[in-house]
Amino acid sequence: MLSNIRIVLVQTFHPGNIGASARAMKTMGLSDLVLVNPRRFPDPEASRLAAGAEDLVDNARVVESLANATNDCVQVVGASARLRSLPLPHFDEPDVMARDLVSHATSDPVALVFGRERFGLTNDEIRCCSHQVSIPANPDYSILNLAQAVQVLAHEVFTAWRRRPHNDYRPAIPAEDRPPTREQLGHFQVHLSQVMQRSGFINQPHARTEAQLEALFARARPSRKELSLLRGLLGSLEQHLPGE
Amino acid sequence: MLSNIRIVLVQTFHPGNIGASARAMKTMGLSDLVLVNPRRFPDPEASRLAAGAEDLVDNARVVESLANATNDCVQVVGASARLRSLPLPHFDEPDVMARDLVSHATSDPVALVFGRERFGLTNDEIRCCSHQVSIPANPDYSILNLAQAVQVLAHEVFTAWRRRPHNDYRPAIPAEDRPPTREQLGHFQVHLSQVMQRSGFINQPHARTEAQLEALFARARPSRKELSLLRGLLGSLEQHLPGE
Repeated sequence: MLSNIRIVLVQTFHPGNIGASARAMKTMGLSDLVLVNPRRFPDPEASRLAAGAEDLVDNARVVESLANATNDCVQVVGASARLRSLPLPHFDEPDVMARDLVSHATSDPVALVFGRERFGLTNDEIRCCSHQVSIPANPDYSILNLAQAVQVLAHEVFTAWRRRPHNDYRPAIPAEDRPPTREQLGHFQVHLSQVMQRSGFINQPHARTEAQLEALFARARPSRKELSLLRGLLGSLEQHLPGE
Repeated sequence: MLSNIRIVLVQTFHPGNIGASARAMKTMGLSDLVLVNPRRFPDPEASRLAAGAEDLVDNARVVESLANATNDCVQVVGASARLRSLPLPHFDEPDVMARDLVSHATSDPVALVFGRERFGLTNDEIRCCSHQVSIPANPDYSILNLAQAVQVLAHEVFTAWRRRPHNDYRPAIPAEDRPPTREQLGHFQVHLSQVMQRSGFINQPHARTEAQLEALFARARPSRKELSLLRGLLGSLEQHLPGE
């Protein structure tokens, strides 16, 4: 289950932070590290700061986009100190987030995403996320070093994992009732967007309206089956629309 | 109350760890940093890693011994990855420790003590502590970087502080019922030791027996008044003993 929990670092500036993050991960039983466009990697600083966790650094996947890093995940939590204006479900408390993440990780891959040291995550990257989490801190000095933030959230995840219910009874959830992957959700959003435009509801690409409706559907947490139904509905509607 | 919580770093080897620890402290509302015999301090690395927390580094007290750093504290929690053979009360869970520490910090100074990067705390330093805490970690790779350990425990302390009961009712505890300082406890232990030797119970300085009885009395958590009573008893016994 811990192996289902991926740590994604987006465009990390200091290679040392990659190494220190790997060390933080390994102390807390995590091993799946993915780097999105790291500024400098591989780099001796990453290996040096990793101490005994170089295996995580050596095995880290490097990808071009956050979507690539999280397509197979059913839950993607963005760690962001700065609130964005998107209505993304937000965990104020890391331990509450960790319990939720660990419960999803029982069956499917999930991810915790950390942004750039200075700039955090962009709005587009936040849109790759299903949730946001912030680490409550001193209002006068609230930004943790990147690797420290990884350590704190990894610690909360490990705590939640250690304290998870141990009973044998786990109701069998049919695949169709499980959450969709980010990729499946993405396909639905594209389909919805096309229908909104072809119907004339959106005259021109109107990012805010689209984003709000996307967030609404995401908050509804459709199962895979429900997503199928929605796509079936969109398909039926499309037949009556002009264009394409 | 947070200002009653002191972070003590013992013989830190890397100045960078001092700076990174200061940053970790400040994000979590802590400001009282004391350094026991740091290997190299002041040092540019400490200021550099402190980022915006140089004020904590600049205001850090430097002392010669752990006792000096904690004499005025009613609770001293040693963060130790390696269990020692002393029967010191031990917190297995950082959040449980943090709630206890925060409750004591309402009225009196308390301290969280971190040892050397490689060697942790010596047995003598553990004896300066009232409790131990360990951070549960991957059994195959369980040693957190020093500043990371400070960050994790500071985060748990800040969480406990945020979640503390907010009701106005706080039963007034008379001074005599409050816990003694480490210094007062130390005086009692010296007195007890003298009586043990003068009575012939201990023929020669027998560190293990003394340590075990010291730990027993510490575990009993005598209030200041009870400590007074014990010292009064020792005084009465002494009158009948040979020597001195």
